[in-house]
Amino acid sequence: MTKTVLRVLAGEAVWPPPVWLMRQAGRYLPEYRAMRAQAGDFLKLCLTPELAAEITLQPLRRFAMDAAILFSDLPIVSLGLGQALRYAEGEGPILPPIRTEADLDALSLDRVADIVAPVWETVRRVAAGIGPATLIGFSGAPFTVACYMVEGHGSREFAAARLMAYRDPALFQRLIDLIIDANLIYLRGQADAGAEVLMLFDSWAGMLPPDEFRRWVIHPTARLAAALRETHPHVPLIGFPRLAGSMLGDYALSAGMQGVAIDTAMNPTAAAAMVPPTIALQGNLDPLALVAGGPAMHAAAGKILDALRGRPHIFNLGHGIVPQTPPDHVGALVEQIRAV
Amino acid sequence: MTKTVLRVLAGEAVWPPPVWLMRQAGRYLPEYRAMRAQAGDFLKLCLTPELAAEITLQPLRRFAMDAAILFSDLPIVSLGLGQALRYAEGEGPILPPIRTEADLDALSLDRVADIVAPVWETVRRVAAGIGPATLIGFSGAPFTVACYMVEGHGSREFAAARLMAYRDPALFQRLIDLIIDANLIYLRGQADAGAEVLMLFDSWAGMLPPDEFRRWVIHPTARLAAALRETHPHVPLIGFPRLAGSMLGDYALSAGMQGVAIDTAMNPTAAAAMVPPTIALQGNLDPLALVAGGPAMHAAAGKILDALRGRPHIFNLGHGIVPQTPPDHVGALVEQIRAV
Repeated sequence: MTKTVLRVLAGEAVWPPPVWLMRQAGRYLPEYRAMRAQAGDFLKLCLTPELAAEITLQPLRRFAMDAAILFSDLPIVSLGLGQALRYAEGEGPILPPIRTEADLDALSLDRVADIVAPVWETVRRVAAGIGPATLIGFSGAPFTVACYMVEGHGSREFAAARLMAYRDPALFQRLIDLIIDANLIYLRGQADAGAEVLMLFDSWAGMLPPDEFRRWVIHPTARLAAALRETHPHVPLIGFPRLAGSMLGDYALSAGMQGVAIDTAMNPTAAAAMVPPTIALQGNLDPLALVAGGPAMHAAAGKILDALRGRPHIFNLGHGIVPQTPPDHVGALVEQIRAV
Repeated sequence: MTKTVLRVLAGEAVWPPPVWLMRQAGRYLPEYRAMRAQAGDFLKLCLTPELAAEITLQPLRRFAMDAAILFSDLPIVSLGLGQALRYAEGEGPILPPIRTEADLDALSLDRVADIVAPVWETVRRVAAGIGPATLIGFSGAPFTVACYMVEGHGSREFAAARLMAYRDPALFQRLIDLIIDANLIYLRGQADAGAEVLMLFDSWAGMLPPDEFRRWVIHPTARLAAALRETHPHVPLIGFPRLAGSMLGDYALSAGMQGVAIDTAMNPTAAAAMVPPTIALQGNLDPLALVAGGPAMHAAAGKILDALRGRPHIFNLGHGIVPQTPPDHVGALVEQIRAV
């Protein structure tokens, strides 16, 4: 029997819906924190297959989830292009910012495969041990990766990246094209190693006005999707254009995804109206409702289940799980969904 | 002849539309920065009528704007309630966080009028000198003020505030009610002092799932609006539920605003479809398009003008103006709008 996540991504409404929680495999689990403390460096965790595979599987050892997502991080693909990447303690990624033609010239596709090979090995190990659950690989979508590469770090506005897009759209396009090509290598390798679904996180898509959203989010995603379909027609794609808001319908119609993840703020009823019924919706419980637990959490989850019943739906959070989440709330949520 | 901003807020489509730029009066202007450097403390600037009035008027001395917004800040109302407020250099507001019943008991409505009196004096001074432009007063909307009051500082997630709303909704409601009452005193005083329009900034509304959005954004705003209409029926209200996304229509239908400001990410065509045609839309040029200037800016502004032509529209940014904005780009934008 086909796995439920794959049935839903093929357009089938499965009830109760399959469930998994994005995004960092086990960062709310003590067994993850112990591993993290031992390894020290976050990037080292991501690039050590033995550790990354174990972390990917940790949530499955505790909860009856239908899928697990590769333990990795959005900008790994920029490391593949030759941009140095490090993680400062308690902060996100730090990269030497790309601001000029010359900065871009220094990047290359030649070593992507060598550099991301440990991630592929992680996928192979997870695939061997995942059992009946579905293995989801991922990368950052071109726009969001470009944001990090140009800005050099996380930011509320990503002003440098967005100003480059306005002031020198040809240069920004060249960067986007390079990220598409690097992502093709990276994601095809994940699929070849055993990833059954691929997800594209466009965490910063929601900052853009409509025309910029079409140009830098929808078009690059559609090109990436079309190229992946050519070589891997049986690997469905889930896109997460976070805070897409009024642009969600355009994204669903044109980005070439089989599933669209919706963020916490999106009204699931509105999403169901904007997105064609053949495309799966994934989401969208507030991660803070999961931290709160109890009746507030169950009520919030119940409304999402009701709103998306009868269409293809994968239950998930609307944003990444937060570290202070009590694991028993996760257990109670999964039980609620199984019991509907 | 009635001022264009007021005509638009009465439901009239005026062409070309009136224009002003939110939110910090002149922070992109050298004359503001000189004043800021002289005064040192940001809060002192806000509470010194002579300085705050001059800053409010600075953009009008350079550009043919149709309105000016009071120079102040969102959490001033919490200062009125007795919560200490300060601004750390280069950071936003810092407040001793409200977390318990006892913290709430320490707040009071008794001194609001005394504490915010300097702001009212600022409004009086601006009203005397503003000429044909419209004077817009403002405060933080209840939810966003509550976010600052509970969290104690700016934040990407406002986890403490949002967890209080899930875990102890009665306590959070009590805080919201108190902010509504303080805002009533504060905003009525602004109107009495000469503010012709009042704006409610709900900067963090877009984090909330639909039910929470209705409960903590729409309902409190509607209550505040109804109470203001009772005493000041001729002062129109503009609400700015930033990143409302799919909830914009619900907000427009139920929050009791005569104008709704839309953020950068909102597709103006989608907003026009979601918001009744009698309610004015305000927005929504990307502040970074204004920084970029030139053809990219003019194209982006032109699309917004076209999308909202034929309905009541006040041209503005979709988010606050950023300090690095070149003043001559502002001049070129205003000229473009006048010349359509």
